[in-house]
Amino acid sequence: MEKLTLLRNRMKAQGIDAYIITGADAHGSGYVTDYWKTRAWLSGFTGSNGMVVVTRDKAGLWTDGRYFVQAAKELEGSGIDLYKMEEPGVPTYQAFLKAQLPQGGRVGFDGRTLSVQSYDALRRQLNEKAATYEYALDLIDGMWTDRPLVPSHPAFAHDIRFAGLSSCEKLAIVRGEMAKKDIGGYVVTALDDIAWLLNIRGGDVLYTPVCYAYLFITPSQAHVFIDAAKLQGIPLPGFTKHPYEGFTEFMRGLRSAELGKGKLFFNANKTHVLLGEAIPRAVAVNRNVSDDIIPLLKAKKSEAELANIRNAYIKEGVVWVRMLKWLEEQIQAPGELNLREGDITRKLRELRNAQADYIGDSFATIAAYGANAASAHYNPGPQGAEIAREGFLLIDSGAQYLDGTTDTTRTVPVGPLTDEMRRNFTLVLKGHIALVMAVFPSGTTGHQIDILARQHLWRDGLNYRHGTGHGIGYVLCVHEGPHNIATKHNTVALAPGMMASNEPGMYKDGEYGIRIENILCVREALETEYGTFLGFESLTFCPIDTRAIVPEMLTAAEGEYLNQYHKATYEALSPYLNEAEKAWLKKGYANF
Amino acid sequence: MEKLTLLRNRMKAQGIDAYIITGADAHGSGYVTDYWKTRAWLSGFTGSNGMVVVTRDKAGLWTDGRYFVQAAKELEGSGIDLYKMEEPGVPTYQAFLKAQLPQGGRVGFDGRTLSVQSYDALRRQLNEKAATYEYALDLIDGMWTDRPLVPSHPAFAHDIRFAGLSSCEKLAIVRGEMAKKDIGGYVVTALDDIAWLLNIRGGDVLYTPVCYAYLFITPSQAHVFIDAAKLQGIPLPGFTKHPYEGFTEFMRGLRSAELGKGKLFFNANKTHVLLGEAIPRAVAVNRNVSDDIIPLLKAKKSEAELANIRNAYIKEGVVWVRMLKWLEEQIQAPGELNLREGDITRKLRELRNAQADYIGDSFATIAAYGANAASAHYNPGPQGAEIAREGFLLIDSGAQYLDGTTDTTRTVPVGPLTDEMRRNFTLVLKGHIALVMAVFPSGTTGHQIDILARQHLWRDGLNYRHGTGHGIGYVLCVHEGPHNIATKHNTVALAPGMMASNEPGMYKDGEYGIRIENILCVREALETEYGTFLGFESLTFCPIDTRAIVPEMLTAAEGEYLNQYHKATYEALSPYLNEAEKAWLKKGYANF
Repeated sequence: MEKLTLLRNRMKAQGIDAYIITGADAHGSGYVTDYWKTRAWLSGFTGSNGMVVVTRDKAGLWTDGRYFVQAAKELEGSGIDLYKMEEPGVPTYQAFLKAQLPQGGRVGFDGRTLSVQSYDALRRQLNEKAATYEYALDLIDGMWTDRPLVPSHPAFAHDIRFAGLSSCEKLAIVRGEMAKKDIGGYVVTALDDIAWLLNIRGGDVLYTPVCYAYLFITPSQAHVFIDAAKLQGIPLPGFTKHPYEGFTEFMRGLRSAELGKGKLFFNANKTHVLLGEAIPRAVAVNRNVSDDIIPLLKAKKSEAELANIRNAYIKEGVVWVRMLKWLEEQIQAPGELNLREGDITRKLRELRNAQADYIGDSFATIAAYGANAASAHYNPGPQGAEIAREGFLLIDSGAQYLDGTTDTTRTVPVGPLTDEMRRNFTLVLKGHIALVMAVFPSGTTGHQIDILARQHLWRDGLNYRHGTGHGIGYVLCVHEGPHNIATKHNTVALAPGMMASNEPGMYKDGEYGIRIENILCVREALETEYGTFLGFESLTFCPIDTRAIVPEMLTAAEGEYLNQYHKATYEALSPYLNEAEKAWLKKGYANF
Repeated sequence: MEKLTLLRNRMKAQGIDAYIITGADAHGSGYVTDYWKTRAWLSGFTGSNGMVVVTRDKAGLWTDGRYFVQAAKELEGSGIDLYKMEEPGVPTYQAFLKAQLPQGGRVGFDGRTLSVQSYDALRRQLNEKAATYEYALDLIDGMWTDRPLVPSHPAFAHDIRFAGLSSCEKLAIVRGEMAKKDIGGYVVTALDDIAWLLNIRGGDVLYTPVCYAYLFITPSQAHVFIDAAKLQGIPLPGFTKHPYEGFTEFMRGLRSAELGKGKLFFNANKTHVLLGEAIPRAVAVNRNVSDDIIPLLKAKKSEAELANIRNAYIKEGVVWVRMLKWLEEQIQAPGELNLREGDITRKLRELRNAQADYIGDSFATIAAYGANAASAHYNPGPQGAEIAREGFLLIDSGAQYLDGTTDTTRTVPVGPLTDEMRRNFTLVLKGHIALVMAVFPSGTTGHQIDILARQHLWRDGLNYRHGTGHGIGYVLCVHEGPHNIATKHNTVALAPGMMASNEPGMYKDGEYGIRIENILCVREALETEYGTFLGFESLTFCPIDTRAIVPEMLTAAEGEYLNQYHKATYEALSPYLNEAEKAWLKKGYANF
């Protein structure tokens, strides 16, 4: 509440009626470094998606269904109200601003933290209000006295044996796409797009091995804007190097003639307002998100990348089997169970450390016992709650290896389950199986197949308030576009080589949460007179606990899939397991 | 070929480089009266969806997957090439024009037959060509010497016991929606929208009981433009009557002041170019298809309408049972089978004539034996092919009763089937059952659930090249929007009271076709903490031939659905059947 009062004083001093804090960084990243966590600092809300709007007498946080429970808790005492995104009757933050802002009111924000696209949408919605905008105004900076510095960790080359193609080869492919789309200059702001193209990785951001940089590419030139200290020993042939801070000025100096007959492309969803406003008005621009080039190239993993990824997923499978076996031993050991959620995180990290080429975790492990799992993105922190011998423990965790990024969720019974828990676990599992078994014509979107994972829950009036699947990076962001599998419409068709998570769930507030997640890869399934049909390969090898299943709710085909999956898991992992581990893996999984 | 030469001569005389013939009427109707069938007259192609473009040296017909087989046949000798819409590598007609038209070329068409939206899309695509347009040019009229007249059949009132709400009540509801959307003037061009609002039906168009008219509605006035002779005895209180031909001139005279603070609304997809061009430039316009008012009101059938519709569907069920029993008797009778496809059409009409309030058929009955059924919208004509004691007979037929419009498809084995036929019939049936059993949250579109009907076919690399479901009118068009169930994206959410067909199929060129179609109605299924969930009521009662099923391919739940459906069918129809008919209905349907 104190911070809010301080902010309102600063707003008054600057004549600002409403101030927006997105908590985003200047690159539209999924995870951001501490320097950018202004929204968490002000509101206390630490989820990955949130937006705070403060007016003279109201303050709200907007977040999505994954975070309703967590946000309500974290906002306590902040003076900020929770607005549940996309729930009936809840206004969007733009509608809230439209209702609260006085006519001709003044809206302020740090222009580095809002995309051009969001800014446009805001102005459209506030059109009638004749609002003015102060978009170069970081009001938090002067309040946040111990604000962390922007980090500058060294980058490292992602070896060609991992990357498959050299940076030069990738640049040629990008330029080929630019020519097809009449793009004479390509602004690249997303850190993972930059890391992919340069074949470098970094340590600037927790969980995502990227480093702060910008790129600008023309048919004949390529410029990289990066802190020189990061690049020691990495040559980046074909790229002219500039200081990171120089990019906005560089764009301001851009002339149409430099682009030839092509347009300047920037992704309006990933380019911030200060940068967008720096582009000279005379330059012809294409800013359609769907015309972006690297996201689609990067999403379709090459066979060389997939060979590495399969290896990483086997290592991760070994880690999970060892963790699950250890967990079962803790539960079955006589005496008091002295186990906390944070122990799971530590155990996984310890086991991963023993694997080759482990870099770090790909996100904060969610080990959520009982009611904690109802908060879909619960973070136990270093200790977490105590685990008892009853109900479900949900574990969602992933790693960054030099040969792949993983993300797995399992829901483990740590004691007796109720019939309802078993029924709902089985409904989630049936959805998971329906999705991985899907076959669909080339051109089908994730939006079209999303229902396969939800259909059984829906029949019981249940649902989950998150997408079914996100794309996943290659030693990059654990959440990666441009495709997904979701109820919300997305026009990007699934294509061979694309990876996506398959993670239906079910959450009961105050009681328990269930989620089962494997990572899938889109593959060609068959070719007929009706064209090419695609299907999924399951990359994740990790047993699904059959003790939580109601067997008579599975069809014969579903039971058979599960048996096949466990057989494939055993075959993939057993060469790396000792006899006791192999025996544990074999015995635990009932035949259907 | 002769007609094409004649047309090209007329094009040359008028300085036209490309001429477009849509075969549409001035109201964007699904079925059109003979006067408007210019495309069929020129090309021979009689399908419901097609577009002919003629240049100086090329001529093409564009149609969709339902008509590929039929169009190829009907175009023979016309000099017009078939362009299969949405097949890989096939240009759209706009892309074709872009490639063929000389720079600065002149494009002509009858502006009454092209929507404002299509005209905009065309101009956008031909932008670089600097084309000019002659949009008031009916070149066919002078060539088609025996062109039928525009019909003028009398209209009749649709009694309040059928309509549920009076025209005055409907007008008040429409004006309420106009106020919400800031619409000061509402142009209504679609004949079924007009018939719905006025509670009148007519006989101007085959299969659809509507009459040619236009409406213009403001908050205080309502104008109807209709041939006065049609309205004898129908008062239409609250409406000012004008001659049909006066509408374009009326629009030309419109002044902004008459609309108050609101905009003029017209549906760009259903308003033709001559009308669109008549609207004064000074008038502020909203032409978003998604803002149209009557289509959505009309699509959500009221409880009063549904009570009538259920009655009509029982009558139609009785008709089908009698026809199917008669068909089986023909096949089982000793001696040569003397049966043609056209006999089915006649039998259905004869049986419908015995039912109360029968107006006519809702489309041309498709009775398609063997390979003829591979053409999804085959029309056997009065005779049709001979039926033999082998394979499948596909029957797709519907009626207009005063209390409802029906549309049913059954695929009947008339002799031995191959294993492949039975397998594919079962795949189609599994899709049909998955769709009718679906439960989904309020807000879900038909696009999202379409996959349920296709999933089993897709797994075998099969598909059908048409939508899974169309909306259906109430004593109006058998195909009605704005919702549908289709692979193509449609943003209209399914809502209680909406009706849709459920008609997956499978077609093997040169061999056979399978389709199973019931009409469904969206109903509230359950209310939980996750909101309102919707499901389907099957309105159609007509047995599905179990002899064509591979029983071991059905899950327990699918078998149970089928048993329930046949039980419900027996209960609904048996009060209207004689003992022999009841016995036939009961015996024919195996238990699963």
